[in-house]
Amino acid sequence: VPKREATRGYGAEVMAFDRFAENGDAVAERYARAHGMVRLSPFDHPHIMAGQGTVALELIEQAGPLDLLLVPVGGGGLLSGCATVARALNPDCRIVGVEPAAANDGQQSFRAGRIIEIAPPSTLADGAQTRHLGHYTFPVIKALADDIVTVEDAALVEAMKFFAQRMKLVVEPTGCLAAAAAFSGAVELKGQRVGVVLTGGNIDLARFASLVA
Amino acid sequence: VPKREATRGYGAEVMAFDRFAENGDAVAERYARAHGMVRLSPFDHPHIMAGQGTVALELIEQAGPLDLLLVPVGGGGLLSGCATVARALNPDCRIVGVEPAAANDGQQSFRAGRIIEIAPPSTLADGAQTRHLGHYTFPVIKALADDIVTVEDAALVEAMKFFAQRMKLVVEPTGCLAAAAAFSGAVELKGQRVGVVLTGGNIDLARFASLVA
Repeated sequence: VPKREATRGYGAEVMAFDRFAENGDAVAERYARAHGMVRLSPFDHPHIMAGQGTVALELIEQAGPLDLLLVPVGGGGLLSGCATVARALNPDCRIVGVEPAAANDGQQSFRAGRIIEIAPPSTLADGAQTRHLGHYTFPVIKALADDIVTVEDAALVEAMKFFAQRMKLVVEPTGCLAAAAAFSGAVELKGQRVGVVLTGGNIDLARFASLVA
Repeated sequence: VPKREATRGYGAEVMAFDRFAENGDAVAERYARAHGMVRLSPFDHPHIMAGQGTVALELIEQAGPLDLLLVPVGGGGLLSGCATVARALNPDCRIVGVEPAAANDGQQSFRAGRIIEIAPPSTLADGAQTRHLGHYTFPVIKALADDIVTVEDAALVEAMKFFAQRMKLVVEPTGCLAAAAAFSGAVELKGQRVGVVLTGGNIDLARFASLVA
């Protein structure tokens, strides 16, 4: 709801669809064709990937060299962009994507070496409910990332509480993926300089309140 | 509770007292004397006032000249410090303190021209539950501030919701005083460059959740 309102607030037309009955990509493609528009994927486009990679660029510029970089994974735009930057600036940096355990299509794909599509998943991390990595993002992730790990939804809630209580930040569940991996021991951190990417606070306030209460 | 835990976490000894039955200043003074310590007021000391004034210093350095500066008021340390800085850097800037309506001892004192002490007030803004301005802070506020206005607790909750939803920040009720004055029309803002001081996010998460839900 807040994402929808904010998007409308920026002047966009918002169309609803049932993600369990229809494919969002197909809906958008159909609409774009019917109206002479160009469809732009939220992740699967080189410019989008490059833009999202500036997160790692700014992080490394400000924080210095990293031994490990943890990045949330949905369609892989952020991970592919950040991996490109981190690999270029810090060749020895370990680059690890983090997915919700219930939506681990990226992990499956990374380990199988080909894009694996899953049924619409259910997880608190609604920004990572994508069903498969992109045709542009996957090859980059396959070439540059070191691993993709997963965290349970409960660990996302713990991370949300930490950020609200100790850092005074509202972070949505998807935005907590990388931090939850760090906090929950899903990756080894000891003695390393670790970069953790937090992404987004688009969560309904009542929902946020019920999760952290 | 989070303030108490955080304070203990920094190595302090924390003593509890009933603020409706005892005077906190007297409790602290007694303890300090018994243990050969120096009591430092959280607001009523020139060094504390000067330190809190760096808020306005950084704000004006970063944001440029202001027409109006809104500052939360408890004991007046922040307001006196910020007023000193703002008056020096922007002589024409209007400087307005903001108190909870239920704890308007500062407004009463400012208007009467002398320190007025009130009974222990009840307001969501627990950081502004002070019963009177300080002997150091009051003369500075009297000389340099333009007014002290008040806001109702309901306006603090609305401001908390705004910061959580749109700026992804957890701000405690006291920290929202100045913003609530801006949002609720307690002061005229039109056409002005307005500085709003937000202070603190020390609020129990369950309490925060129940207020913004």
